[in-house]
Amino acid sequence: MDSFDLIRSLSVKSASRIVLLVLDGGGGLPHPETGRTEMETAATPNLDRLVAEAVCGVTDPVLRGITPGSGPAHLALFGYDPIAHNIGRGMLGAAGIGFPVERGDVAARINFATFDPDGRVVDRRAGRIPTEVCERLCAGLDAIEVEGAELFVRPEKQHRAAVIFRGPGLGDRLNDTDPQKVGARPLALEAHDAASASTAAAARAFLDEAFRRLASEHPANGILLRGFAAYPELPSFREVYKLAPACIATYPMYRGVARFAGMEVLEVAGDSFADEVGTLEARYGDFDFFFVHFKATDAAGEDGDFERKVRLFEEVDREIPRIRALHPDVLVVTSDHSTPARLKAHSWHPCPFVLWSPSARPDLVTSFGERELARGGLGRFAAREAMVLMMAHALKLEKFGA
Amino acid sequence: MDSFDLIRSLSVKSASRIVLLVLDGGGGLPHPETGRTEMETAATPNLDRLVAEAVCGVTDPVLRGITPGSGPAHLALFGYDPIAHNIGRGMLGAAGIGFPVERGDVAARINFATFDPDGRVVDRRAGRIPTEVCERLCAGLDAIEVEGAELFVRPEKQHRAAVIFRGPGLGDRLNDTDPQKVGARPLALEAHDAASASTAAAARAFLDEAFRRLASEHPANGILLRGFAAYPELPSFREVYKLAPACIATYPMYRGVARFAGMEVLEVAGDSFADEVGTLEARYGDFDFFFVHFKATDAAGEDGDFERKVRLFEEVDREIPRIRALHPDVLVVTSDHSTPARLKAHSWHPCPFVLWSPSARPDLVTSFGERELARGGLGRFAAREAMVLMMAHALKLEKFGA
Repeated sequence: MDSFDLIRSLSVKSASRIVLLVLDGGGGLPHPETGRTEMETAATPNLDRLVAEAVCGVTDPVLRGITPGSGPAHLALFGYDPIAHNIGRGMLGAAGIGFPVERGDVAARINFATFDPDGRVVDRRAGRIPTEVCERLCAGLDAIEVEGAELFVRPEKQHRAAVIFRGPGLGDRLNDTDPQKVGARPLALEAHDAASASTAAAARAFLDEAFRRLASEHPANGILLRGFAAYPELPSFREVYKLAPACIATYPMYRGVARFAGMEVLEVAGDSFADEVGTLEARYGDFDFFFVHFKATDAAGEDGDFERKVRLFEEVDREIPRIRALHPDVLVVTSDHSTPARLKAHSWHPCPFVLWSPSARPDLVTSFGERELARGGLGRFAAREAMVLMMAHALKLEKFGA
Repeated sequence: MDSFDLIRSLSVKSASRIVLLVLDGGGGLPHPETGRTEMETAATPNLDRLVAEAVCGVTDPVLRGITPGSGPAHLALFGYDPIAHNIGRGMLGAAGIGFPVERGDVAARINFATFDPDGRVVDRRAGRIPTEVCERLCAGLDAIEVEGAELFVRPEKQHRAAVIFRGPGLGDRLNDTDPQKVGARPLALEAHDAASASTAAAARAFLDEAFRRLASEHPANGILLRGFAAYPELPSFREVYKLAPACIATYPMYRGVARFAGMEVLEVAGDSFADEVGTLEARYGDFDFFFVHFKATDAAGEDGDFERKVRLFEEVDREIPRIRALHPDVLVVTSDHSTPARLKAHSWHPCPFVLWSPSARPDLVTSFGERELARGGLGRFAAREAMVLMMAHALKLEKFGA
């Protein structure tokens, strides 16, 4: 019996509601001058009050010491084993732009690129062409027809796009054609298992015709394909947890992962956290699980902008009373991974985790900061265990055994 | 995918350096009069300063409650599953005396012993004969030839020696001949699987001839064989972690385990911790991972000498500035297991773990003692996870997933 079998056998439908707020890349490292992290520096009276009433801890997204990408980090928060269920970049991208991927589809990322007359890569991103150009070129490529599979080409942003192959028996064990350096020719597509041979044939035919159609374009006179990936087979939230789950996120990839988990992805009127909370308020009666994703903290960390990250925590803090006014039965504030401004990248450091619920046993922690939370009642645990904790505190799990 | 597959796929070669300092048997228990452990009693200003700047925790070598031998305890620190990869005592001993064991070898420990005319054991250690006598007797036994295997006999210390069998198809599922008590005859050698039948035949022939050659000796007029063990198949540090690893240890067994992990074993000019640090300084440019092993704390614990163990921590503390002056990117101070003076033996109590690195998120702990460290940011974890943490903090692991 795997852990999903256990949860499935214990979960019950009820009126209680769970809000999971993910501050992307929230965890940080101390500023060299003050010795305080971004989170510890921010003035967060509302989050501090929440912490004082909550049970807290820190989580490891995948394993201690492993730095996760966004896909594995979110799968873990949703209760999936992030190593067994790693989703390829192509499928994440396709779902993220809202393309209605289906079981059996294989998706890959397209990079529009610039090639010299010998077919060697001159610019792997075609000078980051405007998104409008990307849209026009994708419309042309979308009209290509190949044998063995239906195909769809959709623009993402700038030089990035997605291609989706649909048809019987398509595998995803194909290499990238991107040689990862300029001056080299694209790599030939090879299938690494029998099921992927038909995908390789369709993709080669697509590539030939794409280069023909783009030949007179500049600078995007060709494409590179990366991250072939099949539709992931994930047990759905509705089935495992018996939840009606919704996703409130503005950034494509997170909307995509939420869809794979069976969540309904809601529209948000703007880009700010206040806009996301507005959606939560507007749709609060329609679902019983809300995954609310805030991207900006991660972006500030990636930019190495300590001060901006501090201000973003303060921006989130101001909206916390609006969320609490909805009286969720469980409110979790956590991160998918750390993105310390000092490292300008995702990192392996454990993530803050605050669980507020009338059914929680509060601990002695009273302020919202990584080091304080690490001393909380939940200790240090695998992010993958978070869903069970939320379900338990929402009183949505029956007793195990007699 | 096991965790080594994951690490192998993420590890990268880089210029950063890791120093892993293992204070053998470091963990202790409170003195009945003061209520403080050996570590808590010692005045360790340099280690305290390190702790204040580090992230800390405590480790379980194998499983909570399991008291490990030196082999499993070190394998765990090196990232191996200590249950799946248990190395037999014979092979540990052979490698530890520097014998160049090879894949396929089977080694056993020899105890020179005293037997009465009926062949019953009178003294299982032959009065702990001088090492010089052991060396002379081993030279004689090394000349024995048997069918089915080449063999080598090498002295260790006092009554202890090693025999190594080399040949095709040798198994290691053989019992000890040591009856573990005086007044009993040695046990007959039995093979417990088909592959070990040829080892048993060779070992029986060796025993017959050894007793013949030792018949006129006193007190070492015979031998006992213990701990038959094949060469362990461990993924190598170089291959899994892409490290150039070195071992600085004075005691044979630890040098042996390090060799199995693929480490180069360095010479140390003397027996003191200062001598070991001297080797670290002299060879610091030649490797990027240093396993520095300090045996004396364990020996003091085994002797039940609380005060000596206290002074040894103070001796280590005095050399910490020399290690820090090398500016390692990661410095870990830990133990392989606890050896409380009060128990005079290895124990199951968790081990101190201090990880200093510019990329660490320091916690709120400020003094070097088991109970303080247990409140650190790393919490309580399996020693087996330590290598991944060291690799992460040395920025030698790439991101997992997109």
